[in-house]
Amino acid sequence: MPGSTTPLDLTADVVTLTRQLVDIESVSRHEQEIADAVEAALQALPHLSVTRRGHTIVARTDLGRRSRVVIAGHLDTVPVNDNLPSRYDEATGILHGLGTCDMKGGDAVILRLAATLTEPVHDITYVLYEAEEIEAVHNGLRLLGESDPDLLVADFAILMEPSNAGVEAGCQGTLRVEVRTRGERAHSARSWRGVNAIHGAAEVLDRLAAYDARRPVIDGLEYHEGLNAVGIRGGVAGNVIPDECVVTVNHRFAPDRSEAEALAFVEEFFAGFEVTLTDSAPGALPGLDRPAAKAFVEAVGGQVAPKFGWTDVARFTVLGVPAVNYGPGDPLLAHKQDEHVEVAQIIRCEQQLRTWLTTPQEEQA
Amino acid sequence: MPGSTTPLDLTADVVTLTRQLVDIESVSRHEQEIADAVEAALQALPHLSVTRRGHTIVARTDLGRRSRVVIAGHLDTVPVNDNLPSRYDEATGILHGLGTCDMKGGDAVILRLAATLTEPVHDITYVLYEAEEIEAVHNGLRLLGESDPDLLVADFAILMEPSNAGVEAGCQGTLRVEVRTRGERAHSARSWRGVNAIHGAAEVLDRLAAYDARRPVIDGLEYHEGLNAVGIRGGVAGNVIPDECVVTVNHRFAPDRSEAEALAFVEEFFAGFEVTLTDSAPGALPGLDRPAAKAFVEAVGGQVAPKFGWTDVARFTVLGVPAVNYGPGDPLLAHKQDEHVEVAQIIRCEQQLRTWLTTPQEEQA
Repeated sequence: MPGSTTPLDLTADVVTLTRQLVDIESVSRHEQEIADAVEAALQALPHLSVTRRGHTIVARTDLGRRSRVVIAGHLDTVPVNDNLPSRYDEATGILHGLGTCDMKGGDAVILRLAATLTEPVHDITYVLYEAEEIEAVHNGLRLLGESDPDLLVADFAILMEPSNAGVEAGCQGTLRVEVRTRGERAHSARSWRGVNAIHGAAEVLDRLAAYDARRPVIDGLEYHEGLNAVGIRGGVAGNVIPDECVVTVNHRFAPDRSEAEALAFVEEFFAGFEVTLTDSAPGALPGLDRPAAKAFVEAVGGQVAPKFGWTDVARFTVLGVPAVNYGPGDPLLAHKQDEHVEVAQIIRCEQQLRTWLTTPQEEQA
Repeated sequence: MPGSTTPLDLTADVVTLTRQLVDIESVSRHEQEIADAVEAALQALPHLSVTRRGHTIVARTDLGRRSRVVIAGHLDTVPVNDNLPSRYDEATGILHGLGTCDMKGGDAVILRLAATLTEPVHDITYVLYEAEEIEAVHNGLRLLGESDPDLLVADFAILMEPSNAGVEAGCQGTLRVEVRTRGERAHSARSWRGVNAIHGAAEVLDRLAAYDARRPVIDGLEYHEGLNAVGIRGGVAGNVIPDECVVTVNHRFAPDRSEAEALAFVEEFFAGFEVTLTDSAPGALPGLDRPAAKAFVEAVGGQVAPKFGWTDVARFTVLGVPAVNYGPGDPLLAHKQDEHVEVAQIIRCEQQLRTWLTTPQEEQA
């Protein structure tokens, strides 16, 4: 079962299709090839109408059903880390490689449903989008919500981020700041005449290393915050005392805090340092009290966990559309060098969604 | 007196010539233009024989004198920092701009002496060389010592590094290491599953910030060591816990320690961390007991101070040639954004050297 690249074969089984998607390298900002392949495959399906915006593809049924659901996934991955192409271990049933978990298994489920569900009980809007793994300004779903909000109108949304094929509700918010220290350049042979900005960052890293995460319980779900340096840079030349050091910090905050509250926390945490906000996205409260969320949760098994990772469910929340995370793959493996997925989870997600989307609505009650 | 670039006018006064040199941008590894200009100007002088190696120019008299001196300076500068072109303040007699202090004032003295001393009392080897401000592997004087050691044979050497037009003896050694911390990548939304290598560098910066410099007294001169981060880098992506952080550290060590002893100190200082040596150059003991050093010191005034900065006097020491630092400019201003020089110092250096090099040797006793 060697991986092939374009064109995609939507008649293949969902695992084969996952491999095809994984083997098309699609690091954020380099989604042209995979988006072209997805668009071509969906355009070939007469029961769908397809729209493209940038490298984001939308395919919709238009059957006049009483309700519409969105099923969405992102096409990009974090940078390659010596983990492509995919490798399938038949003995364990595990598919290895970048994007297997986050989230091309989910994308394959979406494409299989799109190809085969010509008469679903709800109208369906399939969304496969670009640039989820980087700064929010590039996010394809965000851009789509701004340029074509009508395309995202729905009664319920499912985001197929990895959740071990279980339902994960809500999501934590995320923001990034640059924490900057300043000094004064001097020749490093007479360092006492300058002020070393990198040494000045010691206290920034000390505070980060000593950070104690808040773990609030919301709707019975325990969230888990985080505050981490994700980048550091400084230095002018090998013999110059550096006059600037910049620590890029990512804060993940539970959905009981707004973006403004989270930023205030970070500013207080780094009191005495220069803090500049570069990127921010809100969390989403679990919203398990909404009927649409309840119905889906019951249909696929009933268990719900909190979502730690920020996901685009927050974008649906902002649009007033109830949304949950539900997809194959262990979220703990996302972004790790040895990222992998149990193919059984991909198959189960496809089956459960297919059952829910083909079972007449009266039987779902 | 607007600065002009090539060709250089060696008949101009030494201050005008300094400006001409400053206004030819010559950051390390970009010395082609200035070396071309220097070579052309020296080739025009019939009493000198000129040799070029890379962007290093050597010009020699060959008068059969009993003794030979080397007078040397580097042509490169640290990176531009919004401090070009030069600016002359007539009210204060100060010339501002990158390289005014380190060390185009000294280079101008060398070129003026080369142009005008047709009958010096010692044979003279003038050396204007590339790449002093960066890793030793590129250093033009080092390369010349390896490719053409005969060109550096001499009884005494003067290196025109900034020393406030006084004599600075010996020099401190310098070495660079990379101190590396390692961690484990994970998605930053579930940071507790990874290990943050940047947070792991907090202890490295803490030790640096707490460093207490050694100040040994050698031959009556007090040296002053240094240990500084000159660069830091780490980070994979804005949502990934980084698995590596690298701090580049520059250690300046007094000349009573060998390179090996200095490295052992650094390794012990960072015990528990991964330390990799990237660059090293030895210090030079003051050597004030040598007759050639004594004679020159007496001729130019008698005062001697220790040299903190590493300079290529160490390369002459290795070749068995006594050498001192003597040049215009305050070394505390080298590599600073507001680098400048009192033009009176440039003029004094030219005059003192001219007197020494034209006074018959019996009168020097």
